[in-house]
Amino acid sequence: MTNIVDWVAVDWGTSNLRAWGIAPDGSVALERHSAKGMGKLRHEEFPAALSELLDDVVAAGTVPLDVLICGMAGARQGWLEAPYLEAPTDLRGLAAGAVRPAMPDSRFAPAILPGVCQKSGADNVMRGEETQLLGLAALHPDFSGVVCMPGTHSKWAQLSGTRIDHFSTAMTGEIYEVLRTHSVLRHSLTGDLDGPGRADGFATGARTGLDHPEQLLGNLFAVRASALLSDRQPDWCAGYLSGLLIGTEIGSNRHLIGEQAVPLIGSSELCALYTHVLGMIGATGVPQDTTNIVLAGLKAARSHAA
Amino acid sequence: MTNIVDWVAVDWGTSNLRAWGIAPDGSVALERHSAKGMGKLRHEEFPAALSELLDDVVAAGTVPLDVLICGMAGARQGWLEAPYLEAPTDLRGLAAGAVRPAMPDSRFAPAILPGVCQKSGADNVMRGEETQLLGLAALHPDFSGVVCMPGTHSKWAQLSGTRIDHFSTAMTGEIYEVLRTHSVLRHSLTGDLDGPGRADGFATGARTGLDHPEQLLGNLFAVRASALLSDRQPDWCAGYLSGLLIGTEIGSNRHLIGEQAVPLIGSSELCALYTHVLGMIGATGVPQDTTNIVLAGLKAARSHAA
Repeated sequence: MTNIVDWVAVDWGTSNLRAWGIAPDGSVALERHSAKGMGKLRHEEFPAALSELLDDVVAAGTVPLDVLICGMAGARQGWLEAPYLEAPTDLRGLAAGAVRPAMPDSRFAPAILPGVCQKSGADNVMRGEETQLLGLAALHPDFSGVVCMPGTHSKWAQLSGTRIDHFSTAMTGEIYEVLRTHSVLRHSLTGDLDGPGRADGFATGARTGLDHPEQLLGNLFAVRASALLSDRQPDWCAGYLSGLLIGTEIGSNRHLIGEQAVPLIGSSELCALYTHVLGMIGATGVPQDTTNIVLAGLKAARSHAA
Repeated sequence: MTNIVDWVAVDWGTSNLRAWGIAPDGSVALERHSAKGMGKLRHEEFPAALSELLDDVVAAGTVPLDVLICGMAGARQGWLEAPYLEAPTDLRGLAAGAVRPAMPDSRFAPAILPGVCQKSGADNVMRGEETQLLGLAALHPDFSGVVCMPGTHSKWAQLSGTRIDHFSTAMTGEIYEVLRTHSVLRHSLTGDLDGPGRADGFATGARTGLDHPEQLLGNLFAVRASALLSDRQPDWCAGYLSGLLIGTEIGSNRHLIGEQAVPLIGSSELCALYTHVLGMIGATGVPQDTTNIVLAGLKAARSHAA
């Protein structure tokens, strides 16, 4: 089967590679998934991974076919480093910052969008999220406020239209995983983690984190102590740890949350948890469709290209 | 060589086993170390580990020889569980809470001191530190205030003479280790961690943690971002991570620190770091001799036995 498309939008993250063929009318003509994320590829393996994924795709216009890529493919350890834009910056500048890696397969003309860095205050970096933020701005041109992007490394970005003013990174998801797997807390987190006690543990942890984000180092140990003293089961402990970390993350960003709803960009499971915890402080989280957001961002970036 | 002693004081922790033979005049007649900590022993291996360590020790008085033990040997997964005293409590009650495990070698009569738990507010537990706190109270009978015990799981205890009013546990040392070893931060922490940049990284991290203990989840990521953006080397990054965690721990306990000096009980390396960070907020840390403290605690506990 041959697929005729105008250009290809690609989200190339650490774990996964996703591509969408965009028809001349702007609709999605085809979708491809691959597990060949940046983290699994050596530098020289990127071109073949792309050719393989798009082998049956044919340009509607003149070859080569444009392939616009966002995400970790542009990291130093990725395909070709795309230097960061520095925040504060207007995300309409992403296309101008794109780099063109060498592509032996002449049917495709890939370009990789830059990430965004921040050097004022504490150093910070993002790769991939900047394109999602541009997508959010494209879909909601009047939005101005804080955006929460839950994940392994959650991002909190202050956005004004297409301008990113400031952002931070919370290692929430990764801390959960390393503590669950490698710390003394693992003794209390072995067994059925999704049992009926999880919801109560989550609510208790979230309330604790929201009220005392400055006490995280101390509150973590309650996972172990509650198992020893109060016979808390693994489901409760897992819920507590998850709630405590998310509550602490949201609690530490409370000064950024106003009356306005907070757009959430991330997996639907995580967005549901963050919406719940935001609700505990009277705030409203609005989960976004991540695929729509990424596509809108890549389309917008392409529209800004010269 | 035969060693004649009145009784034996034992600190049986997770990683190590230490014993001191106490002469009839109260002086230390002999000292023994072993790597047979609680974490390496199955339940039934404790008696042989003790017999082996004390094989050449002979009671000065009538046999059997009293062996008074504090620490993790009394945990559920240790030799015999010694139920916790519940804080607030007077530590002069430790001896009355001791349990006597079965000992096939009839030359020795071991007793294990209890730990202390806390159920008001967040659940918490300690095993071993309570005996050190009793030792501090014995050596400084007029002390009243907060005591900091830096380590894998740092304890902060509010002590009034021999009474422990409240305590908390910060997982500072363990978080450092799991992040250094298992998180994305490990990429920035490989190489010479003790180079000349470590002191500057430590001071920067400590200041950040002291000023914003509520931002720990966000500030941790600066280790990675500083390596990527500001070419920070592994020594600086390791110092920053260590300083950030210790600064956050001390910052979150700032409300407990008054005009009075803070006794520090822990390794000399850690106590030096904590003294430095306490100095950054105008407080004074006073490192204690840990061996003296443990011995004073075991002696005091023995003196309170009926």
